[in-house]
Amino acid sequence: MGEFDLLAKLRERLPEPGPRVRLGSGDDAAVTVPGGATATSVDAIVEGVHFRRDQSDLATIGRKALATALSDLAAMGAEAGEAYVHLGVPADLGEADCLELLDGMLALAAETGTELAGGDLTRAPVLTLAVTVVGHAPSPERLVGRGGAGRGDLLVLTGEIGGAAAGLLLLEDPGLGRELSEETAERLRRRQLDPRPRLRAGRALAGAGASAMIDLSDGLAGDAAHLAVASGVALRIEAAALPLAKGVAEVAAAAGREPLELACSGGEDYELLAAIGPERLGEASIAIGEAAEATLTRIGEVLAGTGAEIRLPGGEPVDAAGFDQLSP
Amino acid sequence: MGEFDLLAKLRERLPEPGPRVRLGSGDDAAVTVPGGATATSVDAIVEGVHFRRDQSDLATIGRKALATALSDLAAMGAEAGEAYVHLGVPADLGEADCLELLDGMLALAAETGTELAGGDLTRAPVLTLAVTVVGHAPSPERLVGRGGAGRGDLLVLTGEIGGAAAGLLLLEDPGLGRELSEETAERLRRRQLDPRPRLRAGRALAGAGASAMIDLSDGLAGDAAHLAVASGVALRIEAAALPLAKGVAEVAAAAGREPLELACSGGEDYELLAAIGPERLGEASIAIGEAAEATLTRIGEVLAGTGAEIRLPGGEPVDAAGFDQLSP
Repeated sequence: MGEFDLLAKLRERLPEPGPRVRLGSGDDAAVTVPGGATATSVDAIVEGVHFRRDQSDLATIGRKALATALSDLAAMGAEAGEAYVHLGVPADLGEADCLELLDGMLALAAETGTELAGGDLTRAPVLTLAVTVVGHAPSPERLVGRGGAGRGDLLVLTGEIGGAAAGLLLLEDPGLGRELSEETAERLRRRQLDPRPRLRAGRALAGAGASAMIDLSDGLAGDAAHLAVASGVALRIEAAALPLAKGVAEVAAAAGREPLELACSGGEDYELLAAIGPERLGEASIAIGEAAEATLTRIGEVLAGTGAEIRLPGGEPVDAAGFDQLSP
Repeated sequence: MGEFDLLAKLRERLPEPGPRVRLGSGDDAAVTVPGGATATSVDAIVEGVHFRRDQSDLATIGRKALATALSDLAAMGAEAGEAYVHLGVPADLGEADCLELLDGMLALAAETGTELAGGDLTRAPVLTLAVTVVGHAPSPERLVGRGGAGRGDLLVLTGEIGGAAAGLLLLEDPGLGRELSEETAERLRRRQLDPRPRLRAGRALAGAGASAMIDLSDGLAGDAAHLAVASGVALRIEAAALPLAKGVAEVAAAAGREPLELACSGGEDYELLAAIGPERLGEASIAIGEAAEATLTRIGEVLAGTGAEIRLPGGEPVDAAGFDQLSP
């Protein structure tokens, strides 16, 4: 397989560039005319560290690499724009494999309005995908960082959590799903292998005036702590309010763990945690409903102080830092 | 070494963001206000494929990763802007090693006006650096792609070539340098290990009206062929006109190779090949002189037809496709 032959075949699969991209993949660099502000983030997944090829097909691995990068744009409230991909290809991966991987990535790109505008293809000892994504907003003020949460804000969470961690446990030990329907087990595995970036929900929350936002890649406990530090506030999360994905309780029980542990320290749910003023919650709920991507649940509040604590149903507080990260 | 501890230490070393970067490393994404047009490219180097740790110190490896990415911006005539880095860290690389690598990258970033605005740090089986760079120009028309060369244009080349290939040969077999002074041998090795992106020269050529431009990463023969295909023209390069780096002839002789082979098929010289109308050559030469980064040599011309040929001193043409790529 020649590098240039494969590159040509990969490029043939790209759709025509949209209006923002003046010169797409194939030159020394892609040329775009952004307008307004851009949000840019890079996220990489490495075989043996973040995924295993015996647990996921190549198209899904390609999707996940793009999805995890786009999730950071969702957390800024940005519109997805361009993606630039380093694909490190091990010797046992053939041309058809690379095309399958690209097709998976392109399918999610089409679903999210992302253009694959450039890339680099190299040899590597294991399959490696580093994806840089550029998102757009009319102005920098329309983007939401982690640092703006203020005392009195409410904490809201999109979708359901714990599913990715439960899915990982199921992939490692399918027997843990004996209490689940095949449909529920499959949905949990997909949460781990094929996460969806909450781009529409993120823009809806930004538009409704969220003061701070972060995506859950490390797990709720860790990511809440990041948001608390960046904003210089304390977060209190009510464990009883947390929306657990269906089947998480059963998998946790079968694995001898607490559901809360999966929900709080299992990473890779890629839901959004946002802080928002109470007077804006109604507007946010309506906007999230219109975005029709995920539910919105109020899970806690922002207080003066530092740190993030998760309050158990009995009222007992647990420092979020006490939850060790479960998944890679 | 905790990922977050190391990230915090890496971030401490970053200078304050400049006016274009509104939110730098540490949030979900960096926020910038580009204005005008952007040129974006990703380039990756992988241990064992593109470099060896026993041939180069970590600071120099960090520099090279950024340099090869910036070279693509030079080839567009863009001003260097932001860099986003995926660093894949093998188990035997400690915290101090990562900081050394970053310091090398930051030194080149400071020299070139590049801001390190984001990154991702993961485990990886071998040291892997994927660098996405964003460059800027007032408008897309000010950027120079590969596709604009026209019949009658002249071909010009910055700097000297063959040095990176000779340097690679010297690294693999130091005995090949027995005819060279230590200074010359060291300069050749640096051409391979520590290339300099021709950013000022690229902007000077773009400003002077270059119609097409490419950086020499694969070697003159291959890159000339890329430019010819993209522009739909033929290129004729005079072998006798090629500016060989000092010491290339001696290393080639010691290795039993032709100097022309090192000059044409040795990659990684990272000089710029540009097409430019003859009436603009004077202006380009003056601009390159003022940029004070590299010489400018006229090496051939653009003809009707297809393909790139290199004409030997006796007048015999050699198809550029006949030169196999030498270095990785």
